[in-house]
Amino acid sequence: MSERYQKGLKQLEIMNKDSYKILKESLDDTAPDLARFIAEFAYGDIYTREGLDLKTREISTVAALTAMATAPLQLKSHIHGALNVGCSREEIIEIIIQMVAYAGFPAAINGITAAKEVFEELDAKK
Amino acid sequence: MSERYQKGLKQLEIMNKDSYKILKESLDDTAPDLARFIAEFAYGDIYTREGLDLKTREISTVAALTAMATAPLQLKSHIHGALNVGCSREEIIEIIIQMVAYAGFPAAINGITAAKEVFEELDAKK
Amino acid sequence: MSERYQKGLKQLEIMNKDSYKILKESLDDTAPDLARFIAEFAYGDIYTREGLDLKTREISTVAALTAMATAPLQLKSHIHGALNVGCSREEIIEIIIQMVAYAGFPAAINGITAAKEVFEELDAKK
Amino acid sequence: MSERYQKGLKQLEIMNKDSYKILKESLDDTAPDLARFIAEFAYGDIYTREGLDLKTREISTVAALTAMATAPLQLKSHIHGALNVGCSREEIIEIIIQMVAYAGFPAAINGITAAKEVFEELDAKK
Amino acid sequence: MSERYQKGLKQLEIMNKDSYKILKESLDDTAPDLARFIAEFAYGDIYTREGLDLKTREISTVAALTAMATAPLQLKSHIHGALNVGCSREEIIEIIIQMVAYAGFPAAINGITAAKEVFEELDAKK
Amino acid sequence: MSERYQKGLKQLEIMNKDSYKILKESLDDTAPDLARFIAEFAYGDIYTREGLDLKTREISTVAALTAMATAPLQLKSHIHGALNVGCSREEIIEIIIQMVAYAGFPAAINGITAAKEVFEELDAKK
Repeated sequence: MSERYQKGLKQLEIMNKDSYKILKESLDDTAPDLARFIAEFAYGDIYTREGLDLKTREISTVAALTAMATAPLQLKSHIHGALNVGCSREEIIEIIIQMVAYAGFPAAINGITAAKEVFEELDAKK
Repeated sequence: MSERYQKGLKQLEIMNKDSYKILKESLDDTAPDLARFIAEFAYGDIYTREGLDLKTREISTVAALTAMATAPLQLKSHIHGALNVGCSREEIIEIIIQMVAYAGFPAAINGITAAKEVFEELDAKK
Repeated sequence: MSERYQKGLKQLEIMNKDSYKILKESLDDTAPDLARFIAEFAYGDIYTREGLDLKTREISTVAALTAMATAPLQLKSHIHGALNVGCSREEIIEIIIQMVAYAGFPAAINGITAAKEVFEELDAKK
Repeated sequence: MSERYQKGLKQLEIMNKDSYKILKESLDDTAPDLARFIAEFAYGDIYTREGLDLKTREISTVAALTAMATAPLQLKSHIHGALNVGCSREEIIEIIIQMVAYAGFPAAINGITAAKEVFEELDAKK
Repeated sequence: MSERYQKGLKQLEIMNKDSYKILKESLDDTAPDLARFIAEFAYGDIYTREGLDLKTREISTVAALTAMATAPLQLKSHIHGALNVGCSREEIIEIIIQMVAYAGFPAAINGITAAKEVFEELDAKK
Repeated sequence: MSERYQKGLKQLEIMNKDSYKILKESLDDTAPDLARFIAEFAYGDIYTREGLDLKTREISTVAALTAMATAPLQLKSHIHGALNVGCSREEIIEIIIQMVAYAGFPAAINGITAAKEVFEELDAKK
């Protein structure tokens, strides 16, 4: 287990431990290295960088995934992540609405649907 | 001139007056309503919303446009906008680098090129 | 309730009342302003514009959403809209097939699937 | 020269003879079959289909290419095509503006820029 | 039944007979010509071309559909196709992982999910 | 200089030394870490993996970048890369033509243009 991997896991501990655990299990038999790359590169190398706080980082990822509109599962995972690092539900909704201007109404509507599903899952756990 | 339009222009005054002026002039003879919609809707209705500060809004737009990778001119314009509302060059570079994880290296490299061009234009004006 | 909102609702009455009602309900607790923007901006400002008949407008939206291939639910909604403003099923199928040339076979196949689902839903209601 | 190829060339004669000639020349030494496929398949098989008039077909292609935002040269070529089959400049501008709602402002702005360039090229020839 | 169609069906016999049969049936009542175009153009004209072996062709299609991230069903169908022309599961996984670098982690993760589903369907049939 | 970086540089030496040198220089003052990530992750971690030969890897990247249609500069760079690891010009043209079926004619045409530019640059150097 490389130092970068450990650094990534520690970062995931803060940001999105549960999503990563599920993802890792689903990749373990077919593409374990992809799960490792996520921990090492995305979380170990990138999210640990200085220069930008985690709230801004996660809300920007929510913006990007909403606008790209090709990865609803990962959008949901990063809405979780955004909440975990201190974004409010209102902030998440705000940034998704803003995406109307850059990616159109369908992308924003589907982004809100993703957020709603995350919020309902969290409320159901309470 | 509607109230929303005035509100949008006022917001553009803070965020990106020069880019809008150039854009408006380029649209004036063929699609003046599109320029009006940008002021009224994107800036009057959306960027004036509460719930998220302008720095986070602009940096999220930079993230989204980098990841979509289809609008280099508008990305440059929003890098200007991000700087105008208080983002540092370092923060802009950081969020573009982060997009590697969601949209791949080419999108991030082209995002950095856009940022570089903006920075050089600003430095040349000094 | 703004004049633009009323204008948009009136336009939606002609074009796609049912889809908007369902959408509005789904957005009401998390992002009611997004539903309002759809009525005000997309339907109040844009679809009410002169210069192009509604049939051409809706069939062009079906073409665009088929080619973008990122919004199957909204594609279905606009296939309903196209039928509501007088497009025939054959015309809708034609424009989706045409998209093969601009977005490839998968986009066109998935567009036909969307159309088929809409047609079956309508036939089931008869 | 297959029957489909001849049918396609005849269709291109009506729709966009000049663009195809330039394209064919540019492909002749590296990928002549791609030029042939365009004539045979896109124009011979698809644009000759019944069930939708050429004006609606071309304006839908303009809508789709504006929304996809990845093919500015081909968008310009189809703006020419739309004009050639009887669309007015106003109709073309209208459908590009409409794309704001489905693909965001940057896609629509860049679509207008493409239209403007085509109109200016045509005006310069007069 | 044109010569190209027969050539395409023969090619599909080698590459992906079952997927095409299901697709053809689903298109038969609404868009039978689209099914015909797939056989004639995609398989009759393109996959029968010389200059590149079928393994490389199919693995490249898997790469492209993973990176585009808009057609999960067709990605699954081409993972079948890749296996049918002699690619190993490991090779398919490899090329999907490689797409991280060009389309980001979400596209690659969803590509692996598609591959996993195909492998499980095949294992269940044994 | 990490082991992964050295491994990546060694791999780039085989695959695309010149493109990386130019890229690295262009990133050196604004985002040197992005250049490092390309060497470490894309070339050090991914292209050095076993299970697929470099020819298939590069031709798949050419396919993906052609189909995505958002990164013409990087497409050109990987056409160079494909030639460097033993692909013939004909093979590159073949895979770009194949992308018509998955991403439409504009993406394939622009892919051929990229290939043509690379071939001409190489011929000019002779």
